[in-house]
Parts: sequence; structure tokens; C-alpha cells
Amino acid sequence: MIERFYQKKKNINLSDIIQLIKPNNILNNNNNNVLINNISNINDSEKNDITFFNNIKYKNDVKNTKALYCITKEKLSKYLPSNCTPLIVDNILLELSKITNLFYPNCIEDKFDHNLKNIEEIKIKKKIYFGKNVLIGDNVSFGENFSIGNNSIIESGVMIGDNVSIGSNVILRKCLVGNNVSILDGTVVGKKGFGFFPDRNKNHKYPHIGLVIIEDNVEIGCNNIIDRGSLSNTVIGKNTFIDNLVHIAHNVKLGKNCIIAGQVGFAGSTKIGDNVMIGGQAGISGHLKIGNNVKIGGGSGVIDDLPDNSNVMGYPSTNIRNFLKNNE
Amino acid sequence: MIERFYQKKKNINLSDIIQLIKPNNILNNNNNNVLINNISNINDSEKNDITFFNNIKYKNDVKNTKALYCITKEKLSKYLPSNCTPLIVDNILLELSKITNLFYPNCIEDKFDHNLKNIEEIKIKKKIYFGKNVLIGDNVSFGENFSIGNNSIIESGVMIGDNVSIGSNVILRKCLVGNNVSILDGTVVGKKGFGFFPDRNKNHKYPHIGLVIIEDNVEIGCNNIIDRGSLSNTVIGKNTFIDNLVHIAHNVKLGKNCIIAGQVGFAGSTKIGDNVMIGGQAGISGHLKIGNNVKIGGGSGVIDDLPDNSNVMGYPSTNIRNFLKNNE
Amino acid sequence: MIERFYQKKKNINLSDIIQLIKPNNILNNNNNNVLINNISNINDSEKNDITFFNNIKYKNDVKNTKALYCITKEKLSKYLPSNCTPLIVDNILLELSKITNLFYPNCIEDKFDHNLKNIEEIKIKKKIYFGKNVLIGDNVSFGENFSIGNNSIIESGVMIGDNVSIGSNVILRKCLVGNNVSILDGTVVGKKGFGFFPDRNKNHKYPHIGLVIIEDNVEIGCNNIIDRGSLSNTVIGKNTFIDNLVHIAHNVKLGKNCIIAGQVGFAGSTKIGDNVMIGGQAGISGHLKIGNNVKIGGGSGVIDDLPDNSNVMGYPSTNIRNFLKNNE
Repeated sequence: MIERFYQKKKNINLSDIIQLIKPNNILNNNNNNVLINNISNINDSEKNDITFFNNIKYKNDVKNTKALYCITKEKLSKYLPSNCTPLIVDNILLELSKITNLFYPNCIEDKFDHNLKNIEEIKIKKKIYFGKNVLIGDNVSFGENFSIGNNSIIESGVMIGDNVSIGSNVILRKCLVGNNVSILDGTVVGKKGFGFFPDRNKNHKYPHIGLVIIEDNVEIGCNNIIDRGSLSNTVIGKNTFIDNLVHIAHNVKLGKNCIIAGQVGFAGSTKIGDNVMIGGQAGISGHLKIGNNVKIGGGSGVIDDLPDNSNVMGYPSTNIRNFLKNNE
Repeated sequence: MIERFYQKKKNINLSDIIQLIKPNNILNNNNNNVLINNISNINDSEKNDITFFNNIKYKNDVKNTKALYCITKEKLSKYLPSNCTPLIVDNILLELSKITNLFYPNCIEDKFDHNLKNIEEIKIKKKIYFGKNVLIGDNVSFGENFSIGNNSIIESGVMIGDNVSIGSNVILRKCLVGNNVSILDGTVVGKKGFGFFPDRNKNHKYPHIGLVIIEDNVEIGCNNIIDRGSLSNTVIGKNTFIDNLVHIAHNVKLGKNCIIAGQVGFAGSTKIGDNVMIGGQAGISGHLKIGNNVKIGGGSGVIDDLPDNSNVMGYPSTNIRNFLKNNE
Repeated sequence: MIERFYQKKKNINLSDIIQLIKPNNILNNNNNNVLINNISNINDSEKNDITFFNNIKYKNDVKNTKALYCITKEKLSKYLPSNCTPLIVDNILLELSKITNLFYPNCIEDKFDHNLKNIEEIKIKKKIYFGKNVLIGDNVSFGENFSIGNNSIIESGVMIGDNVSIGSNVILRKCLVGNNVSILDGTVVGKKGFGFFPDRNKNHKYPHIGLVIIEDNVEIGCNNIIDRGSLSNTVIGKNTFIDNLVHIAHNVKLGKNCIIAGQVGFAGSTKIGDNVMIGGQAGISGHLKIGNNVKIGGGSGVIDDLPDNSNVMGYPSTNIRNFLKNNE
């Protein structure tokens, strides 16, 4: 699916990668003129790929990687299998970012889509209801009974299911939209995330080659921002409803049947279970795992994982009974 | 006023309603072929209406209802007068929602207004200042000295007072705007609220047949979302000023002379008195009653009613002196 | 620079000012027919200016003012030098606001820019990449390699540096944009601030004659609102990155290399140092001074100044160690 949205370069010479990331170790001559086909994670790598290994918790996975090369650091390099040559660097994620950008150019800045046309100028076989000044990119696919309001933009590659209703002033970019989905006015879906390596002269932004996947029966309110993933996808699960002015950062995964009230914020890479209810203005920190059937009170600040069936409130959030007792 | 915005069906056969909501009790044959004119609340009902009674606190009101039929539950049905036949259901609000939708179709989804025309194509007698790509619906009324920026949309039925200034990228829907009102860029007024009955297969959205009423001298900043009411109206009182990125849910009523700072959020159906000052990012839970002359500190979370002249801060909010003392 | 954005009236007769602000003291006949050239602060005043003095901490500055007249209150008037005639009023800032409006009309309401043209209709020598329906005001200057998405608006006077990328549905008003800046979809830069004198009949808005200055290498995410200054400027320092749905009030100054996560809010006139990191949904009160290298945890509420190198969390924010210890 990624090829639908991102043009990938193929067969980049290893020497170009070496020059870009300047590894600390010296490779022997056998590596001259090797062509690399892709950058990929440990488990998905094919033989001509380069991968990365930055956390010892993946040491068992890395044993089976098919990748020819792996960006890693000195003390992790001993876990690599013999078919995989380490490229030792100081900042794995920074170098990963540079290589990703080499394979997938144009994923760092969200320049506007140059291929947009007014919907009146393109041929669509299906019946579509559209407002004024609707712009559509290349290779957008539509389901039955599609409706889209004024000044809305669907950028190239986006796929839309059946019975989808889009409001006015909406932007859809790098996303797949399921059936029976409503996305209301002023919302931006699929913007690149807020990801970069801080540098006091000029921050290094990293590429975002993920998508936003919106499953069936979802409703998304007004003026929300849902960023696409960097290497994985941002996901809004089936039958999840989201109110207004909500911020969903890159790589967040919301489960099914969630209810997300106004002005809630999710920091990057957090995973929310099914049937989770979150009150207005609550904030969920990044890289957390929130279980199923969790209730998070309005205004709460969640900074730790929460098991299934938790019912919390407060900042930092705590069991709601304790919270209310402490604040009687 | 509601007819200006919502087309109501008349004379719906009771048997269609019976089929839709499937009451637990069986009605006698006298009820065959009865035509129902409207769904309405207990006090406003006319003779040919159907009403609903879901809380014992209205038991005195229901004695005097003129409605022929009333959706209610078993244990409340004894309070109905003899002229009013109960329709016993398990979930009164869900069935109410279905009947409302029968009388007022097209109030569940906010499809874009199909009747919009470019402002340059319509005849307006008054002098109007307008930007590019301004779209106006049917039967919109304008006051003197009206100004509206680029890409803004006024949907059908909206009424605008004198000396009103609308920014760019603004959407006005299902609302009445008083005199001397400013609404700044990117704000959406009158979207349907975040109201639905959760269902793990597919949530049931409920119809929103209320309006947003913006009284005289109001200023509303940028990228705010003000949802319209479901059965009642959302109201912004006279001379109330609202900063940016504020979320005002359905049925909220703000009093006069309020000052609402940036990123404040109001959950549904809360009522705010006059002369209330609310600091940035404060959140007010739903269904609360906040008195007059109340001050709520920035970042506070208000989860209980507040009497007149309260001065609170914190989460949950408490008297500001206690808050500051406890946090010395 | 201010003349690029705001038309100033010159040579306003002192008698008109007297009539407007109705000072408590009576001026002698020598003041008849004096022409005033500008309203300015104590230090910048030229001889034919009027200035204001409202806080005793400026008593040393006022000794050297060149201004002919000074709005002040009774008990401060004794600090004025002999060349400067006091105009004694009860509410200095309110009267200042009225006089500012006299010199700079049209700065109180943000009416849309009447001089916008479609970018296709104007001559620009530089190569520009633009989407559909892009509107540009008078006297806008562009750098090299400029890109701007659909439905975006650049109002009159705005200056754009090199390598700037603007998203869709963006509004730029009263601002200077440096080099290598990205401003993403739906953001509004340069709106007038939320400044007014409350009055229970009709609030008195005050003029905003400041700018927004965006320095080099800045990134600003989606649906942010950045208000321009009232008398000074709002500033976003070099290499500072801002996520989505952030509210930056008038006169705020962000330092260099700051990282501002989603939904953060800054109240008016606060000054943030360099290398400051602020987590999602944190709020910073107005008129504070936050030092360099400060870290503010997500969801925090900062209500006091913070020295350099502080690391805080909580509401009100406190040292992060104490916060986590108290909440174990």
C-alpha cells in the first residue's frame, strides 16, 4: 500500500549510504558496489534491504533478519547474524532518518499536492455530491454515495469507502477512509507528524512514510488534526467517535468503539484499546499502552500505561475513587 | 423559528411510530389511524403531539400536558393524565431520538448545504463587503454594514444583524447572529453536537434540531467550534467575548459579559451565568450550573455547580484561596 | 516597519485628543493648536509625541522623555520633567487605547483585506509554487523557492524569506516570515489579540498595531493561532518548532530552539527563553518570564516565573522531582 502514496527509489548504492551516515566501522571491499533495495524493520527485511537495531529487546528478532546490513551501535552489534553486516553509528534514529529520506524523498516537508484538480474537471464514474472549489489529487478512489463540502481537498492516492461524508475546509492526505465515515469541517487528516532531531542550529525533521487509517463507522468532528505515522500508521478503530479540536499525533492507534471528547490530546505512538472513553481536555502521554474498556475522566493527564477496565481521573491520573476521595 | 432551519414532516401515522419504537405495551384499537403532528416537550405539546417523560421531577408538568401520547417507562406511566396514552419503552432517549428523526429528517449528519451560491450571483439589497469565494445559502438575511472575508460560508436560513464582521474560512450554520458581532477566521458555528447512543456495532447518532444564538456585541475568536443544540439552543450571551480554539458543546448557554480565554472547553448542556471570567484551558463539565460573577482560573477543571460570586481554581476546582494555600 | 502595515495619521490637533480623553486637569492656553505627531512609549518618544506613564517603575525613564504630553494619573504626574505636560486621567490604558485608535484607525477590528488578488493575477518575478485560490495582498514580498498551498491568504505588507513553505487554508496577516520556515494547514498568523477593556454594556476593544515576527528555521503546525502584538510584537524565535492546535496570545515572545508540543497555550505578554521544551496541553499564564533551558511537563499549568534550567510539572507547576514524589 505504501507505494500508492510514496515513491520509493530502488537500488541505492551502499557507498552512497556510507557517505551519508559515515559509520564508525570500516567495511571490507566485498561491500563495494552492493545495491540496496529498501530500508525496512528487522522482521520485514528482504535480502537486499538495510535494517536498524536500536533496542536490545529485539535481540531475538534480529537473529533471523534477512537484511544484508544493519544500522546499530557498537554494543548491540554482537547480536547480528553473520549474514548481516553492522554499520556502527552514534545516533541510530538520526541515521535511519537520513536513509529513509534517501529511499523516500519528499516525505519530510508537507508541500501541497501539485496534482490537484477541481472535482468538476475530473471524470468519476460514481455519483458524488460535492460543494464548490473541491480539489482532488491523482489516483483517488471513491465509494458509493460520497459527499464532500466546499473548499475541501483530497490529495493523491487517498481511498474512500462507501457512504462517506466529508465537511467543508477538510484536508485528507495519505489516508485510507473506511465505510460510513463522517469527517467534519476544518479537520486535517494525514499531515506529517511533529518528529525531528533537535539541533540548535537547525532541527533535522524526519520523514513520515506512514498513513492514517480510518476504519468503518468512524466520526471525526471539526478542526481536529490527525497526523500520519512516521514508519508505522496512525489508526482510528472501527466505530470510534471523536469530538472537536482533538490532536492525534503520529503513530497513535485508537481501538474500536472509543469515545473521545473535545480537545483531548494524544502524544505520539500511544496505543489505546477498544471501548475506551476519554473525557474532554484529557491528555495521554506518548508511547503508552491503554487497555480495553478504560475510562479516563475529563481533564486527566495520563502518564503511565493503564490496564484493562481502569477508571481513572486526575493529573497524573489515578483511580477515580482515590481521586474523588482525595478531593472531597 | 425552527421551521426556518428544519423541514418538519406533519401528520405521521401513529402506526409508523409504533413500528419504529416497538413499545412494550399494547394499544387498543382506538389508536388506529391517529395522525401525530409533532414531537415536543411536556409543556409545549399541542393536542396532536407526542411527548416524552423521563424524569420524575417533571411529574407535575406532565399532569397538564396536552399531548395525546407520551414515551415513558413503566414506573413513570402512572403520572400521565387520562387524555395521554403511554408508550412504554426501555430507553426513552433512544426512542425519542428515532421519532425526532422521523419528524425532522437530515438533522443527524451535517451534509454540506446544497443550496449555496457564490455571493456575487445573488441579489442582496443591502451594501455588503465581501472577499473572494464567499458562499451563501437560501433565505439568509443580512443587516446593515455586513462584512465577510474569503472562503466563508453562510448556510441557508442564517440571520445576521447589523454591523457584523465575519472573518475568512468561517462557517455559519443553523444560527442567529445579533448586532455588532465579530466572528474571526476559521471558526465553525452551528455544527451538530457530539451526541449519540453508543452501540458496539454502530453508534446511533441523534438529531440536532437546535440553533446557535449569538447575541449582540459578541466577539468570537479564531478556530473555535460552537455546536448547535440538540433539542434546545446553544446561546452566547450579549457582550460575551471568546478567545481562540475554544470548544462549546451542544446546548451550552453562556450568559452576558463573560470573558472566555483561549482553549477553554465546555461540555454539553452546561449553563454559565453573567459576568463570568474563565482563564485559558479551563474545562467545564457537562450539565453544570455556574452562577453569576464567577471567576474560574486558567487550567481549572470544574466538575460541580458553582454558586454566584465563586472564585475557583484547580482540578477539581476549589476556592482559589485554598488552592493557592495548598500549593504554597 | 510599522508603516508598512499600519497607516498612521499625522498631526492630530491636541484639542481633538483632549476632547476624546477628557483629562481631569485643565491645560493653559499655550496648548491650543498644538499638533501631535504620534503616540509612543516613554523612551521612543519624539518631541511632538504624546506618551503615557502608568507605572512608577518607569520613573527614571520618564525624566528623559522628549514627549510634549503624557497621559498619566495624579500621583505619578510629579515625576514628569518640565517640558512634558501631564494629561491626568483615571484609566490610563483605556485612554491610551483611544488615542492609539485615533492615530492608527482600522486596528481594532480584523476586517478582511480588501486588496487581495488571486496570485495568478499578480506579477511576481520570483519562481513561486502555488495551489488553487491563493490570495495575495498589496506590497507582499517573497523570497526564493516559495511554496503556498490551496485557499491560503497572505494579506498586505507581509514579508516572506527564502525557502518558505505554507500549507493550505493558512492566513498570514501583519507578519514577517524568516528563511526556511514551514507553516502548515489551517494556521492563522497575525490576528488581533484578545485585548479589551470590559464594559458591561459593550466592551472596548483595543487596537493592535504590533506584528508577528517568525524567525528563521521555524516550523508551525496545523490549526494554530498566533496573535499579533498590541503595542509590541509577538515573536517566534529561530529554529523553534510548534506542533498543532497551539494558542499563542498577543505579545508573547518565544526564544530560539524551543519545542512546543500540541495544544499548548500561552497567555498574553509572556516571555519564553531559549531551548525551552513544553509538553502537550501545558498552559503558561500571562506576563511571565520563563528562563532558558526550561522543561515544562505535558499538562502543566505554569503560573509563576521560572529561572533558567528549571524542570517542572504539575498544576500549579512545581519541580518535577517533587511532583512525581508527591504523586507516587
